[in-house]
Amino acid sequence: MKLAAIYEVPYYAVIFTSVQTESLEGYGEMAEEMERLGSAQPGFLGIDSARSGVGITVSYWRTLEAVREWKANLDHLEAQRKGRVHWYTRYTVRVAKVERNYEFG
Amino acid sequence: MKLAAIYEVPYYAVIFTSVQTESLEGYGEMAEEMERLGSAQPGFLGIDSARSGVGITVSYWRTLEAVREWKANLDHLEAQRKGRVHWYTRYTVRVAKVERNYEFG
Repeated sequence: MKLAAIYEVPYYAVIFTSVQTESLEGYGEMAEEMERLGSAQPGFLGIDSARSGVGITVSYWRTLEAVREWKANLDHLEAQRKGRVHWYTRYTVRVAKVERNYEFG
Repeated sequence: MKLAAIYEVPYYAVIFTSVQTESLEGYGEMAEEMERLGSAQPGFLGIDSARSGVGITVSYWRTLEAVREWKANLDHLEAQRKGRVHWYTRYTVRVAKVERNYEFG
């Protein structure tokens, strides 16, 4: 149970919220693979993820260019396509510039 | 299992991530009360929340002024204080300007 750190502002957060289908075959492996690939991308800072009913994943990136490169990554595009066909009934994506951050503990 | 809508950009997201203690007495009632009060604040747009190991709550606001007013709300300040004393071993707060959003499904 580890949270991502806070970082020097400004940086970018990609907020992904989702509702899953009941046919999750292949999902776990793909999610792990995407976390591995994404965290190796240039400009990746960290990620937080939780699911209970809905799922929320927030990934943190140094620049908007880094966000765009990851979105356009070919393996990631294929994962996005499979997600729409098989795993998600609904999702939202928000790209947001983090202007302030602080922590406790 | 309902996700918040997407909204006209720009708007603000407050990303709250947390790790809880094992003494959650009073937490559930307070969380419900804060969701009720927060969603009645001027400028409140919506909220998404999930917990599995870590917790992630993202609330959406029309302006930075609305974010500041909610942060300074007296009942909310008391909830924040109790959170630090009783319910959270660690948390992070990020205030971010949503520049793009889209949805599927």
